[in-house]
Amino acid sequence: MAKLIECIPNFSEGRDLEKVEKIVNVLRGRDGVKLLDYSSDSDHNRTVVTVIGDPAKLEEAIVEFAGVVYENIDMTKHEGGHPRMGALDVVPFVPISDVTMDECKEMANRVGEKIGEMYSVPVYLYEEAATATHRKNLAKVRKGQYEGFFEKIKEEQWKPDFGPIEMNEKSGCTAISARVPLVAFNVNLGTDNLEVATKIGKVVRHIGGGLRYVKAMGVMLEERNIAQVSMNLVNYEKTAVYRAFEMIKMEAKRYGVPVVGSEVIGLVPMAALIGCAEYYLQIENFSMDQILEKRVME
Amino acid sequence: MAKLIECIPNFSEGRDLEKVEKIVNVLRGRDGVKLLDYSSDSDHNRTVVTVIGDPAKLEEAIVEFAGVVYENIDMTKHEGGHPRMGALDVVPFVPISDVTMDECKEMANRVGEKIGEMYSVPVYLYEEAATATHRKNLAKVRKGQYEGFFEKIKEEQWKPDFGPIEMNEKSGCTAISARVPLVAFNVNLGTDNLEVATKIGKVVRHIGGGLRYVKAMGVMLEERNIAQVSMNLVNYEKTAVYRAFEMIKMEAKRYGVPVVGSEVIGLVPMAALIGCAEYYLQIENFSMDQILEKRVME
Repeated sequence: MAKLIECIPNFSEGRDLEKVEKIVNVLRGRDGVKLLDYSSDSDHNRTVVTVIGDPAKLEEAIVEFAGVVYENIDMTKHEGGHPRMGALDVVPFVPISDVTMDECKEMANRVGEKIGEMYSVPVYLYEEAATATHRKNLAKVRKGQYEGFFEKIKEEQWKPDFGPIEMNEKSGCTAISARVPLVAFNVNLGTDNLEVATKIGKVVRHIGGGLRYVKAMGVMLEERNIAQVSMNLVNYEKTAVYRAFEMIKMEAKRYGVPVVGSEVIGLVPMAALIGCAEYYLQIENFSMDQILEKRVME
Repeated sequence: MAKLIECIPNFSEGRDLEKVEKIVNVLRGRDGVKLLDYSSDSDHNRTVVTVIGDPAKLEEAIVEFAGVVYENIDMTKHEGGHPRMGALDVVPFVPISDVTMDECKEMANRVGEKIGEMYSVPVYLYEEAATATHRKNLAKVRKGQYEGFFEKIKEEQWKPDFGPIEMNEKSGCTAISARVPLVAFNVNLGTDNLEVATKIGKVVRHIGGGLRYVKAMGVMLEERNIAQVSMNLVNYEKTAVYRAFEMIKMEAKRYGVPVVGSEVIGLVPMAALIGCAEYYLQIENFSMDQILEKRVME
């Protein structure tokens, strides 16, 4: 199978759609790189891009893309509801096929070094690419946001990993990472009681004593008048989709509430679902190379 | 996703491996066509090839391939344990992605017509491409085999669909079809009693009153000393893998026998397993376009 890395850069412009097009265009029509999706949110004033490709070609594309983002966005004028520390806010690299996490970490490092030097933007590495434990969590890295970074950057423990050690006023800073693909998976409950979903969410998620790579909360599906446990599975290899699903079923029993369905939001890596089929069908010694479509992509 | 058709031609040579290489080589290094697998069996004196590609390019490749098969194999000298009616015995076309069964039927027709005319070989269409009900089942079409076809071909109901209406002595006849991908799926039982597997196989399979697209039999896994229900799922879209699996579990209960595992043999289309994950996780409104890898292949 061909080597493939996914990148989901987030940049701080979600209102001026002409500008968004101009920026996203850098990722169009490139050899070996495919723009899969992008969506702008005007409340957040932010655009999330999904692009995938051959590692070397993707790396080249992202470095060029960063330059266009910095050129077109002025953080001194930015307002929006979503936390952000810079014009090119976050750049996670995700291994998709025939690529190790280490290769993604190396890519995060090379891109960080290049972007830092070429555009004079301070760069922080986070998640799997973090250079210290306190830098793993993006929320902690980004705390204080753009406005706070003029001071934060001076603290020894928040010295940038690459680029200048002083704030770039126009562009802010950029956080780059390597991480496993995220699966957005929601489980619908046969109840109109939001509290049940909230309680289940709290015990299933990591911070509540639940599964290590699950983030969860209860939400109400107003149209259907049912409650839902909405999850982000941040490492489906270590916390499998079926495990989170079965745990929610188990917890729902205590309330006499059935699980009536589930949904996968957006894109999902094939292996996350194939792994569930393997579990429920009790398949022994299965290899992803047995998937016909994977063989075709080789 | 790119249009993809799979073809699994079987030809009547499995002993002279130099000859096998010469024949298979026609399918190598072609633009838009990929040789996925081939395996020769000397007892059967037969080789099974798996090739996949863009419909037009695959069609061209298979027509050329047929010529090389007919050139290199002499059926008057062929012996082997597997039923066969010709040098190029069967040529099934299977829709893999963004292709309908009708497109595969049309392909079977075009290839049949070309092969029949170009190489003067009688051609029969079977399975989904069959031109009459009695020609659907390959075993019925092939009955009598090469040796019997000198007479069988003269019967009105066995008049070839394409090519000459007389037998080709050197090459025999060729059967061409369109069919859905076959999934070889076996379920392991926690017993050393072969009879249990045999009984379960009999009620699960179509001819025993079971599921429409299941062929099944009991076999013994000598090494592990356990019995297995060995199945061919000949239409996983209509008879899902999980349905066959759950039915075996249900039947095994009657004997107090647990299902201890299962295995997928060879290649399996992604959708056959994703469909099982959808069932067990109760996923609503899932689309195969949400599979990241499919989007990459677009």
